[in-house]
Amino acid sequence: MLLEVVTGFSGRYTALMLINCVAYQDGRKLADIQPADIHLYLDRPGCFVWVALREADPATLHELQKQFGLHPLAVEDACHGHQRPKIEEFGDSLFVVLHMLELNGTELRVGEVNIFAGPNYVLSVRSGVEKGFQDVRTRCENEAHLLKHGSAYVLYALMDAVVDRYFPVLDHLESEMEAVEERIFAADSSARANIEALYSLKQQLMTVKHAVTPLLEAIANLAGARVPALLTGMREYFRDIYDHLQRLNLTIDSTRETITTAISVNLSMITLQESETMKQLAAYAALIAVPTLIVGIYGMNFEHMPELKWRYGYGLALAGMAILDGILFYRFRKARWL
Amino acid sequence: MLLEVVTGFSGRYTALMLINCVAYQDGRKLADIQPADIHLYLDRPGCFVWVALREADPATLHELQKQFGLHPLAVEDACHGHQRPKIEEFGDSLFVVLHMLELNGTELRVGEVNIFAGPNYVLSVRSGVEKGFQDVRTRCENEAHLLKHGSAYVLYALMDAVVDRYFPVLDHLESEMEAVEERIFAADSSARANIEALYSLKQQLMTVKHAVTPLLEAIANLAGARVPALLTGMREYFRDIYDHLQRLNLTIDSTRETITTAISVNLSMITLQESETMKQLAAYAALIAVPTLIVGIYGMNFEHMPELKWRYGYGLALAGMAILDGILFYRFRKARWL
Amino acid sequence: MLLEVVTGFSGRYTALMLINCVAYQDGRKLADIQPADIHLYLDRPGCFVWVALREADPATLHELQKQFGLHPLAVEDACHGHQRPKIEEFGDSLFVVLHMLELNGTELRVGEVNIFAGPNYVLSVRSGVEKGFQDVRTRCENEAHLLKHGSAYVLYALMDAVVDRYFPVLDHLESEMEAVEERIFAADSSARANIEALYSLKQQLMTVKHAVTPLLEAIANLAGARVPALLTGMREYFRDIYDHLQRLNLTIDSTRETITTAISVNLSMITLQESETMKQLAAYAALIAVPTLIVGIYGMNFEHMPELKWRYGYGLALAGMAILDGILFYRFRKARWL
Amino acid sequence: MLLEVVTGFSGRYTALMLINCVAYQDGRKLADIQPADIHLYLDRPGCFVWVALREADPATLHELQKQFGLHPLAVEDACHGHQRPKIEEFGDSLFVVLHMLELNGTELRVGEVNIFAGPNYVLSVRSGVEKGFQDVRTRCENEAHLLKHGSAYVLYALMDAVVDRYFPVLDHLESEMEAVEERIFAADSSARANIEALYSLKQQLMTVKHAVTPLLEAIANLAGARVPALLTGMREYFRDIYDHLQRLNLTIDSTRETITTAISVNLSMITLQESETMKQLAAYAALIAVPTLIVGIYGMNFEHMPELKWRYGYGLALAGMAILDGILFYRFRKARWL
Amino acid sequence: MLLEVVTGFSGRYTALMLINCVAYQDGRKLADIQPADIHLYLDRPGCFVWVALREADPATLHELQKQFGLHPLAVEDACHGHQRPKIEEFGDSLFVVLHMLELNGTELRVGEVNIFAGPNYVLSVRSGVEKGFQDVRTRCENEAHLLKHGSAYVLYALMDAVVDRYFPVLDHLESEMEAVEERIFAADSSARANIEALYSLKQQLMTVKHAVTPLLEAIANLAGARVPALLTGMREYFRDIYDHLQRLNLTIDSTRETITTAISVNLSMITLQESETMKQLAAYAALIAVPTLIVGIYGMNFEHMPELKWRYGYGLALAGMAILDGILFYRFRKARWL
Repeated sequence: MLLEVVTGFSGRYTALMLINCVAYQDGRKLADIQPADIHLYLDRPGCFVWVALREADPATLHELQKQFGLHPLAVEDACHGHQRPKIEEFGDSLFVVLHMLELNGTELRVGEVNIFAGPNYVLSVRSGVEKGFQDVRTRCENEAHLLKHGSAYVLYALMDAVVDRYFPVLDHLESEMEAVEERIFAADSSARANIEALYSLKQQLMTVKHAVTPLLEAIANLAGARVPALLTGMREYFRDIYDHLQRLNLTIDSTRETITTAISVNLSMITLQESETMKQLAAYAALIAVPTLIVGIYGMNFEHMPELKWRYGYGLALAGMAILDGILFYRFRKARWL
Repeated sequence: MLLEVVTGFSGRYTALMLINCVAYQDGRKLADIQPADIHLYLDRPGCFVWVALREADPATLHELQKQFGLHPLAVEDACHGHQRPKIEEFGDSLFVVLHMLELNGTELRVGEVNIFAGPNYVLSVRSGVEKGFQDVRTRCENEAHLLKHGSAYVLYALMDAVVDRYFPVLDHLESEMEAVEERIFAADSSARANIEALYSLKQQLMTVKHAVTPLLEAIANLAGARVPALLTGMREYFRDIYDHLQRLNLTIDSTRETITTAISVNLSMITLQESETMKQLAAYAALIAVPTLIVGIYGMNFEHMPELKWRYGYGLALAGMAILDGILFYRFRKARWL
Repeated sequence: MLLEVVTGFSGRYTALMLINCVAYQDGRKLADIQPADIHLYLDRPGCFVWVALREADPATLHELQKQFGLHPLAVEDACHGHQRPKIEEFGDSLFVVLHMLELNGTELRVGEVNIFAGPNYVLSVRSGVEKGFQDVRTRCENEAHLLKHGSAYVLYALMDAVVDRYFPVLDHLESEMEAVEERIFAADSSARANIEALYSLKQQLMTVKHAVTPLLEAIANLAGARVPALLTGMREYFRDIYDHLQRLNLTIDSTRETITTAISVNLSMITLQESETMKQLAAYAALIAVPTLIVGIYGMNFEHMPELKWRYGYGLALAGMAILDGILFYRFRKARWL
Repeated sequence: MLLEVVTGFSGRYTALMLINCVAYQDGRKLADIQPADIHLYLDRPGCFVWVALREADPATLHELQKQFGLHPLAVEDACHGHQRPKIEEFGDSLFVVLHMLELNGTELRVGEVNIFAGPNYVLSVRSGVEKGFQDVRTRCENEAHLLKHGSAYVLYALMDAVVDRYFPVLDHLESEMEAVEERIFAADSSARANIEALYSLKQQLMTVKHAVTPLLEAIANLAGARVPALLTGMREYFRDIYDHLQRLNLTIDSTRETITTAISVNLSMITLQESETMKQLAAYAALIAVPTLIVGIYGMNFEHMPELKWRYGYGLALAGMAILDGILFYRFRKARWL
Repeated sequence: MLLEVVTGFSGRYTALMLINCVAYQDGRKLADIQPADIHLYLDRPGCFVWVALREADPATLHELQKQFGLHPLAVEDACHGHQRPKIEEFGDSLFVVLHMLELNGTELRVGEVNIFAGPNYVLSVRSGVEKGFQDVRTRCENEAHLLKHGSAYVLYALMDAVVDRYFPVLDHLESEMEAVEERIFAADSSARANIEALYSLKQQLMTVKHAVTPLLEAIANLAGARVPALLTGMREYFRDIYDHLQRLNLTIDSTRETITTAISVNLSMITLQESETMKQLAAYAALIAVPTLIVGIYGMNFEHMPELKWRYGYGLALAGMAILDGILFYRFRKARWL
């Protein structure tokens, strides 16, 4: 059917771009519809259309702009991408930009979803990440009593899903941090690797912070005094998202502070290790320098050096040096230089 | 009797989970009641039910949700646990999340208590820590004139108890900090142990801060302009908790700053000690190098070196070296290199 | 024609100073006019004059001050230059100061544009940078439906253009930062060059921040509650600029934090490298000191040193030393000291 | 007479605890009264009682609580001590907690004064410091025209006295700081002593800050919009205290920043000194190593070494070494290594 | 005439203390008057008196307090000096404290001016700096149309003059900073001198900040919502001062941040230089140690060492050592150790 859509709508949609286009009424799914028919459903009372796109091109966006009457500045932002997370009101509709975070092994991938929500439509445009919102749609369709709230509930469900996906990412960073902490205080760890890991963690944390903090500020308004008309009656739900974001923010801030502390602690450990290495080296140097002085003594050319004539002079000298080094070694070990 | 309860209420409560379920009227204890009978007491005028659970499972919580009419989002939070401390209003009832801190030797254990409070009930769900609220209940039952305030007073008493338990934890951290301070400036301390102690103190302090700061923000509202209906007339009591939290916060912040300073001071001490060790090593090196040069001189093979023929040349050379080292040693000692 | 203007207006305008002087009505260009005729157009309904100057001298500014009725304090600021970015209201007109940033190779050039905007005029005075606003004028003239908004739209278009030109500058700094990051962790990089690069990046970033942050504060008012009369109906456009500035600000702040982290990480790397060099040196020192001790032994003058008489004593000694050094070398290599 | 009081008032007051108990009317002292008679004076129009205690025990406080009708939460705070500086309203009376700072040699002693002030009474409870408020009482009694303002003026006079005593403490810390600054840059100072001094200064400064900052916040309200009824007409006086606190706060903050800078500068100086010491050591090492090489050369056993046969070979060799060291010494001195 | 004044006014004014005492009406100078006659002019409509003092003693101030009806708290502040910059309202008059900064060579001198301004008088009391306000008076007298605004305009002119004198001071600090920056990265600079310069710059900057920041906060109110009656109609002028202060503040903050960065960069440079010196030393050590080993070899006493018998053995050994050192030198140079 998707292929049909592609040809039926001026041939511009590809199966890749359009994921879903469904009309709902009174909390129940009405039908998969064709994009070209959207306007037929927008005027029905209690009905709204939920369209999901991915990696949409400007042309497609401009066509949907006409269907839904989207504001040009919002569409322009969606076309350009790389926006700061934000929630903007345009008349009675909202334009929401969220960052999406995906762990790909240890690499952090940043995508974006732009959501246009009006009284009778929700349009989500996702880019840059693999995982979509099929699970959100399924959950919504199973909870007819909530979906009755209309497009506002869908907006909440999408935002909630995006925010909930931040938690495992942050958990990952926290456990990485704990691993680094252990290594810092371990005797045999590579300080160089620790520094690199801390630096990289800091950078990844900043990426998460860029997703969370601006959204926190933006959503404070939705949960605060002046609620947009669209979200009337949903206040407690958005306060719940706000609460999740605050928890994320708290964790980010404390992890950030921990990293800063860890970097300076690591520097202390490096300096300390340098100092310990220096002592160790000095101890070994002494173990060599002392006998070197002694052999020097017996290398002197004085005529009257009785020891030189002794039968076991040589042996005694060697033994003396060995004993001296033994004593030194014992004392260095006791002083923990060796 | 508790076992009776367990079987009488669909067999789901275990003695471990349900601690108390008591109805109160006009400041006096009415009766230990069975959870299944809670609804019988909720409508009596001047009567409220105070239930204490620990490590409650979702099923239990959902049953109590029905009994008390709790908000689903609040119950969901209580089921998940690991919340940020907060105070949320749902209609005329409050949902309060507090962190509980317990010192287990030198280890800091973090638990959580979720309190649901409405006009005629208080439900506390504790998890992760040993010590409960039996002492709070006893104190409340002994102060009938205060317990007359109803569930709001119980909420205050619980919160006050949780906050008061932060003080010994913080005192412990402060005295640990003082111990580290002394060690930092002591000549023979292990810089490595100091760093580890400072880092660990910082982490523990962050844990306390996470319990205190969000609560401080949340309670500012209870003590501030718009007081929830439930707490009318209790303003001065909550301002008292607020004041305690501010004191804790002040101590946390200054200890945190002290730790930061101590870390950088410790780095200075390490660098300084390295520098002093270097001087010490250099002094010892000189004590060896100077005689090494002298023995080298008398190891030269010139034909005409009169000293070599002297009867006591060897002895004089040795004595000379000893005297030279003595002078050097004296001067190094005077310069505090040794 | 410009030359004509120069002579027609008391000979003071040079072609360099006056770039354009055009009257517009209802979104369409009316005519290139002479500065001396400006007053003829100011009173026509729906008409406004847009004058663009560069490197204007005080005399010219004072003449235009009379034509447009500009406020003396604003003109004084424009004469002095080197202002902080700001937006000031004087009655029903606005005085806007913006910094202009231009990359000249790797050097960052800072210019300034002062814009005077009233209901029926816009006067822009640019200084210190090459690129002007010809493209803005062209775009405006092509969008008659927007230009109908009058001088407020021109003000928006100018500010939007200036702010949009900050992005490539910041992109440049970010990619420089990434280059430095890679070098910091590379084994063979010059720490000295890294420090200089980080310091210079920080300075350039501060320059960008000085352009962005004060403007962000100033424009918050235009997009906020009390909008100046001149900008009525343009709120969403200025919110768009505000949003761009916030994005810039976020990037500046995080890059700044990254630089701070990088400086301290770089210090750690220097200390670490010093420590590694020390180990390397110590290893080499051992490779020399150990055989030196041995040759010392065989330089002793004991009468009874059997090895000295051996036929291959010398060869064996040399071989022994070589083998010893070989073993040492192998062990140092294994311990990664060499 | 004080002893009489002790016995007359259920034997609980000791001369140590009760300092003064005086009734005033219309700015003049009425009489030293006995605590038991306080209630006789409270109802007289234009009359107020001013009681000064020190190191009061809970029993005494509870009795005065009954006499004056103090709020139980305030009295509880006064009994516990160790409060944060604060100003709390309880109905028409105020409860004020101030820290008192006293220099005892170089040690900083922290005391506390709790002041209960109502329309017709002032009760001050001091603990932990030597110096009391006798001078304040004397000054007040000499300024009848001001004392006519009643208890509010006494409250002002007490707070003003406490705050004024912060200045010499801070002056002391500032001059200590200046002494440390000079030592940091002096060539022969002990870096270790400097670090300890800076750390201790920082700690003492934090103590002063804990006295000043919370009070500053609290008093901002007294000087600000909503003034408690008790203080009507005294606004300018409390603004004066506020101004003093701001001055103190400014000095504290800048000294704190200076200490932070000084700690990092001190670390630079330590590193620098280490580096200079290293050069010095290396220079001395060279002065020994070079002749050691030369004596080694003439210690070689080649058959054909013509110098060895020379009459003055030995002397020339010694002289050569001396000259070489002379040249080296000269060059090291010139390069400022020695 | 000034001497006359001194005797005519109870002999207390000295020529040094009283600079000017002039009455103005409708923007024109009326007459130089004697302090004793001030009251004669205060009641004339449209007339105000402008008195300028320097290093005034308390007695003089108290006499003028009576003449002008100044508030005792303000006069007390002026007598004590060393105030924080501030603007305080006392009824319909203002009390303004400003810091004055003067460069005396490279030393920064801090003075103070206290201005009392009421509807019909301005009294300025300057202390601690050389330069007065004669130029301000001259400018005011030349601008009759502005001086018509009365005492408020004089207050503005004085404040504007004080603030404008901050700019050259800050410019001086900035150019000092640039000089230090260049030195930090220069190869042959003295790190010690750089640290001292940075520390001193920081201190001087703090002095400027103490002059600017409190004033900025104070003046925000004058330019903000609630303007004191005295300054009605002068809002744009005070906004202009506010704008200058913000520019100063911005520069101070960024210079401060630059200094902090420079200190840490300087530490990196010191550590780096230490590391480079260490390599250099190690290279030289190798140039000595390697031949020392070789001479040791030929100092061994083995009977069978063929080289020792060679005719040119000695020469070859010396040459070998020279060549070896040559190779080493070449390689160290290539690795940039030398």
